[in-house]
Amino acid sequence: MIETPRPATRGPYRTGIERRAQLVAIAIEVFGQRGFAGSSLRTLAERADVSHATLIRHFGTKEGLLIAVLQEWERQSAEHDLADVSGLAYLRRLPDIMAGHRRNRGLLELFTTITAEASNPEHRAHAYVVQRYETNLRTFARHLQAAVDAGDVGALSPAQVALEARLLTAALDGIGLQWLLDPNVDMALATRTYLERAIASWRRVARPTA
Amino acid sequence: MIETPRPATRGPYRTGIERRAQLVAIAIEVFGQRGFAGSSLRTLAERADVSHATLIRHFGTKEGLLIAVLQEWERQSAEHDLADVSGLAYLRRLPDIMAGHRRNRGLLELFTTITAEASNPEHRAHAYVVQRYETNLRTFARHLQAAVDAGDVGALSPAQVALEARLLTAALDGIGLQWLLDPNVDMALATRTYLERAIASWRRVARPTA
Repeated sequence: MIETPRPATRGPYRTGIERRAQLVAIAIEVFGQRGFAGSSLRTLAERADVSHATLIRHFGTKEGLLIAVLQEWERQSAEHDLADVSGLAYLRRLPDIMAGHRRNRGLLELFTTITAEASNPEHRAHAYVVQRYETNLRTFARHLQAAVDAGDVGALSPAQVALEARLLTAALDGIGLQWLLDPNVDMALATRTYLERAIASWRRVARPTA
Repeated sequence: MIETPRPATRGPYRTGIERRAQLVAIAIEVFGQRGFAGSSLRTLAERADVSHATLIRHFGTKEGLLIAVLQEWERQSAEHDLADVSGLAYLRRLPDIMAGHRRNRGLLELFTTITAEASNPEHRAHAYVVQRYETNLRTFARHLQAAVDAGDVGALSPAQVALEARLLTAALDGIGLQWLLDPNVDMALATRTYLERAIASWRRVARPTA
């Protein structure tokens, strides 16, 4: 359970925004545990100790709540401010970012579960998840291409850059899943081991001849 | 939809075993689409065009059906008979095995979804999934250790062997997930690229001094 402090009375200081954020936090927990498909607004309302009507007022539908939850995931992910780094320096932040998931297991569990469920084209979050992967792959590819252009690694072809972005994404997803299954898994060590080997192999690719 | 040929009449040739196998095939499809948590026996009964009582007679509970489905996954996985190979030869079969998932998308979707859902310790398949990962990690580690012992790669420590088994598992899981999201992903190429780079790096580790 997420511990949400509950005031003795519902005063005017309890704004709608705070309440909404609490409901999103509870939804993250419940979706993470049961998946989106396995969660009902009724379960969420019971867990949050609010009425069904309150949930509807804040989110409209279960899909509206899912979107709010996914936006919260994006917002928390964006807190890893990487705007100041690019190329290999960006990629080398990834072990710390993976280690950071330990502070919010529920969100990683949620994202992993929704992604798997939504791999089915009929799932209501399918388009969102596909879009999110494409964006992520492009981001990794852009930073690797920057490293190629800077001469920090060899002259990987565009196809190689795209494949490396896929493999990196795959490794991160798989490492996160294994940590969810076994909290003793050292996500930072696994990510660093993957990444340093990849960088070493990229560096063995020939530089372009001038 | 899985196309299950339906005889015009239900004669004695339609054995309980055949019927059970058909129900498992439909359950694989439905669990894969909706996850275990999001599937009900009612949905399964409707999709299979059988009564709720028939499902209960064959499987007892939804959990009983899940176990039957997971056993079918194990059975189909075991059809990749790898008993004849070990060490690097075993690991080098993995690209073909990954490519083989294209023939049964539903089962990969099911396994990916159940694994993600069941990463939560309260999920009813949690113990099964944890056990399955441990077995899988041990298998990969055993084959890599065989390669170390045979001198096919350098003298990786037991901790390195264990970490490499994790990274390989992570890459395979992540590659499968990306293919589910985008059928254009070449699972065999991605797996081979990962594996050949890993093998090359293992070979750069010093052999034990005699």
